[in-house]
Amino acid sequence: MGVLEKVTEPSHLRALSEQELTDLAREIRDFLVAKVSRTGGHLGPNLGIVELTLALHRVFDSPHDRILFDVGHQAYVHKILTGRQGGFDVLRQRGGLSGYPSRAESEHDLIENSHASTSLSYADGLAKAYRLRGEDRHVVAVIGDGALTGGMAWEALNNIASVKDRPLIIVVNDNGRSYTPTVGGIADHLNALRTDPRYERVLDLVKRSLSRAPLVGSPLYDVLHGIKRGLKDVMAPQGLFEDLGLKYVGPIDGHDRPQIEQALDQAKGFGGPVIVHCVTRKGNGYEIAEQDEADCFHSPSGAFDPLTGTPVAAPALKWTNVFRDELVEIGRERSDVVAITAAMRHPTGLDAFADEFPDRFFDVGIAEQHAVTSAAGLALGGLHPVVAIYSTFLNRAFDQMLMDVALHRCAGTYVLDRAGVTGEDGPSHNGMWDLSILQVVPGLRIAAPRDGARLRELLREAVAVQDGPTVLRFPKGAVPADLPAVERQDGVDVLVREGEHDVLLVCVGAMAQTGVDVAARLTEQGIGVTVVDPRWVKPVNPVLLDLARTHRLVVSVEDSGRVGGCGAALGVALADAGITVPLQVKGIEQRFLDHDSRAALLAELGLGAQDLARDIVERVARIDDAPLVTGDHDPLPRS
Amino acid sequence: MGVLEKVTEPSHLRALSEQELTDLAREIRDFLVAKVSRTGGHLGPNLGIVELTLALHRVFDSPHDRILFDVGHQAYVHKILTGRQGGFDVLRQRGGLSGYPSRAESEHDLIENSHASTSLSYADGLAKAYRLRGEDRHVVAVIGDGALTGGMAWEALNNIASVKDRPLIIVVNDNGRSYTPTVGGIADHLNALRTDPRYERVLDLVKRSLSRAPLVGSPLYDVLHGIKRGLKDVMAPQGLFEDLGLKYVGPIDGHDRPQIEQALDQAKGFGGPVIVHCVTRKGNGYEIAEQDEADCFHSPSGAFDPLTGTPVAAPALKWTNVFRDELVEIGRERSDVVAITAAMRHPTGLDAFADEFPDRFFDVGIAEQHAVTSAAGLALGGLHPVVAIYSTFLNRAFDQMLMDVALHRCAGTYVLDRAGVTGEDGPSHNGMWDLSILQVVPGLRIAAPRDGARLRELLREAVAVQDGPTVLRFPKGAVPADLPAVERQDGVDVLVREGEHDVLLVCVGAMAQTGVDVAARLTEQGIGVTVVDPRWVKPVNPVLLDLARTHRLVVSVEDSGRVGGCGAALGVALADAGITVPLQVKGIEQRFLDHDSRAALLAELGLGAQDLARDIVERVARIDDAPLVTGDHDPLPRS
Repeated sequence: MGVLEKVTEPSHLRALSEQELTDLAREIRDFLVAKVSRTGGHLGPNLGIVELTLALHRVFDSPHDRILFDVGHQAYVHKILTGRQGGFDVLRQRGGLSGYPSRAESEHDLIENSHASTSLSYADGLAKAYRLRGEDRHVVAVIGDGALTGGMAWEALNNIASVKDRPLIIVVNDNGRSYTPTVGGIADHLNALRTDPRYERVLDLVKRSLSRAPLVGSPLYDVLHGIKRGLKDVMAPQGLFEDLGLKYVGPIDGHDRPQIEQALDQAKGFGGPVIVHCVTRKGNGYEIAEQDEADCFHSPSGAFDPLTGTPVAAPALKWTNVFRDELVEIGRERSDVVAITAAMRHPTGLDAFADEFPDRFFDVGIAEQHAVTSAAGLALGGLHPVVAIYSTFLNRAFDQMLMDVALHRCAGTYVLDRAGVTGEDGPSHNGMWDLSILQVVPGLRIAAPRDGARLRELLREAVAVQDGPTVLRFPKGAVPADLPAVERQDGVDVLVREGEHDVLLVCVGAMAQTGVDVAARLTEQGIGVTVVDPRWVKPVNPVLLDLARTHRLVVSVEDSGRVGGCGAALGVALADAGITVPLQVKGIEQRFLDHDSRAALLAELGLGAQDLARDIVERVARIDDAPLVTGDHDPLPRS
Repeated sequence: MGVLEKVTEPSHLRALSEQELTDLAREIRDFLVAKVSRTGGHLGPNLGIVELTLALHRVFDSPHDRILFDVGHQAYVHKILTGRQGGFDVLRQRGGLSGYPSRAESEHDLIENSHASTSLSYADGLAKAYRLRGEDRHVVAVIGDGALTGGMAWEALNNIASVKDRPLIIVVNDNGRSYTPTVGGIADHLNALRTDPRYERVLDLVKRSLSRAPLVGSPLYDVLHGIKRGLKDVMAPQGLFEDLGLKYVGPIDGHDRPQIEQALDQAKGFGGPVIVHCVTRKGNGYEIAEQDEADCFHSPSGAFDPLTGTPVAAPALKWTNVFRDELVEIGRERSDVVAITAAMRHPTGLDAFADEFPDRFFDVGIAEQHAVTSAAGLALGGLHPVVAIYSTFLNRAFDQMLMDVALHRCAGTYVLDRAGVTGEDGPSHNGMWDLSILQVVPGLRIAAPRDGARLRELLREAVAVQDGPTVLRFPKGAVPADLPAVERQDGVDVLVREGEHDVLLVCVGAMAQTGVDVAARLTEQGIGVTVVDPRWVKPVNPVLLDLARTHRLVVSVEDSGRVGGCGAALGVALADAGITVPLQVKGIEQRFLDHDSRAALLAELGLGAQDLARDIVERVARIDDAPLVTGDHDPLPRS
């Protein structure tokens, strides 16, 4: 029996010997590789945080003390140590363990958000609350160097620093890369600390100082701290944190557990805000992950061979790949096209563009606000920015899209990957908000391709738009086979035209194939159906209004929230045109979806072909039973 | 004839003598006080930036070089110097001068956004574009110390610092207050530079060094700079900017124009990113504004006596005042209620709460993201946060409302002041987005009071909600007289019930009075009308569905965007319940509104009682002419 099996709650860690703790770290790494190689999930970040998590749970008393993991994909070790080893066989599967902290799973989890840079703000609020309520509890936020590039982290640091006597420990888990190497001034700063040739020498001094140091805050500590700081000022500028008023301890070797514990103990006793800077290696202990430049082991999407790192299933062609290749082609034709990512060079498919046009590629860090507004600046300077971002993360830059881009009518193509239901990553990764919140943005045009051919085509149409911004949104996963149109009518693709003009089915993007499947079922029942893909879903194409006039029922289907999306906009356009044909709006209900596969979730939401067809048949039957539906413009009576 | 009249474009400044420039500064201040005392507008920030703006336009060649003013309310002097003196008599009035930069007004204006902290991101994009296109143009961003507390500024600084050879000048206009004194670590840092007793001595040294200094970037400069830095390290830590990799020049007396020009000249020649730190006094030269602790002269809302500072019109009781007083009452009853502002203690009415409960009040800086997520932290720690914020600025924290607050079901009351059409401040201040984008947030409840009594009542209901967040939104300006209900039906207030059940008018918040006025007109025409105020507009109250079933036409009226708002949500609820009574959604069309008065804009948008009544009468006539409207549930035929 190994050590791991014996640890079912954090307090067990405190009774272990040094040897057992060393064995435990190795067992955890083996466990992680074995499990994640079967299920997929976040691997690299968790391999890098084994010793740090052990130290945190030995020094602090969770859940009385609160340990908050920024982003949350670095919480697997924390899950293993808090009684959830058994769940890893069904990681990220329906009813199984979430890939992020989850309050439903454990009292040791308090925040379950997987958007970056939030932990310091939560921690600031918690620490304020505990102090006001007179509760003696420590708050520890664990944040990566990548997440420190996000503006929220700065806002929080600025606030945390302003109150000197509120205990709050910020552990910077610095592996020098968010997905790919972290960018910007803060990264340079941390990097200087890490890579300076004098690092080892100073590290030794830090070790000796700390081991001899009495209680933090005492005069002797200040002297030692002063010496340390003085030396570090020689080595690399240190002021960034200290000028903000934050005590700084580090850099610490993030794989030397005893050293981390010592630093955390000191920080714990200090009584004010402290930064503990731990230098770790992403993928540590699993050579294939450590050496992976493209960082595929950040989060392998499916099972892989643990010995070679090779995916078990042959990789399918994904939406991202189609975008990736087409953008390079466009880049060769147009020197004014530039590309921006918020720390996701590979996941968004910008790597090929970046390799070929390094001067025209900008990785701004985990900084969606800056990504969008600097794109506005690039546009004002005469270039055409293509900003590639996950749909869910664009929510961080809604105000910037509205005010900095749209108000200024800045051209630019905003490519939202992972739009719609994404599934396994849980509620905070689903891209089910974009079509609603972007509807309100004046002058913004939105395109939703249904297949690879349309993605290439719409991307070219988007970068050709010069008088304002465009959004191009497509889902996660494998791109389906091309779905040809019967006819293109002023930009609207007619995919199916069968029988009488009973039902007009307006399908947004990837829901087109579902629409075709629905049509087959309706036709079987003798219901006439027209299926269209508007391609550009904002603004509403007038062709849709003309078509609506000649049908008895309009159904819109979108892979985004039901309220305020494309269907709602179509409803407003119909009403404004005085067209009273009934409209059914199909989309995702406005609730947070638990993790599951995309297909299973769409089915559960009633967005599968079978459920949609059944609903439509019922609705048509009710219309048949009722007297003529009428209004300002009479829809055609059934012939 | 004064100097001011002779300056109609920036190039004229370069020919002026020192005496003329000194006279000009005085004339500009007199001009500002004289004009703004008649129209209202931003006064304090512009009085503080006279010499700095003169220096900028003498050293740089606008519009070839680009000068970007963060927030934009500090651009009056810039407007005066770029040929727009004549427009100040109609400042912020329809067809008159905008209160912010405006591309329609001048080629010297490039960005017209009035949300804070964006200028550095724009500047980064512009500088990248100019370099890629081989254009030799300087980019200068002028940003206040307050705006530096916003996360966007950090994201931008981090990016600007990462490329050492891209020229970009950041002028920090440091007056130590955004609206009230700026908070946080960055403020402490700047304050330390400003207030250290050794400041004067070092300032002298800086002056002497700079005056003797050869070209920036030369070895001698580096030596001088090194000496300067060494001395400043003794005085106050200096590393904040330099650790990020940004050259720092300062602090400079921001009212000593020759000194500023010297510093800007040095910065201009440097070729990389440089921070020029200018210390200014808000309201400088107008004693009443300088000494105003509550910072009412940041932006007096109407005319005032320039000699005494007293407003000309007696102040009306505003929505903000009602909230202000009621929150204090609640604070006395409940010790768990805490309040948060993003640098707007007075404008949001939190000042009284802050005065009485200083420990329970948090000003987080211009940092809406942190305001919201730290509120989530406070809630998780057992307190009830009340976050008071302008509606338009909540857009900055949409993702935080969705993921950090709503996903975690954190209780908290988010009070959106200046919701709906605000008018004079132009497109970026209208709060016409909240009811749409917040509709998609699962579990969030939204209340919209129609008058002061309902504001007090709904605020109390909101802070009593324990299982999730609430939003309370109300407009800018004077609160109307209380509008009593005929009856309250399961939370829905019936305001008018006249005649047959023809029209159901659902009015959101402050549109209730308009609804009552519309009802009077409809009644005159023999059309029966029921006017209701749902008070809580999200989720849709089932009472509305019951009422809809018994009417022939439903009309919803809201002071927010038409797409995806309360009307759209009502439409979805009606459709889901199978109720096919026609619905007219009245709200603000989705376009950016030019500055004008609130009343004029509402009229222009067709949201005045007269236009609404006419539309409804026409619609009812069409229904009367047509055969029976019917569907799943037949609305009552007209008796």
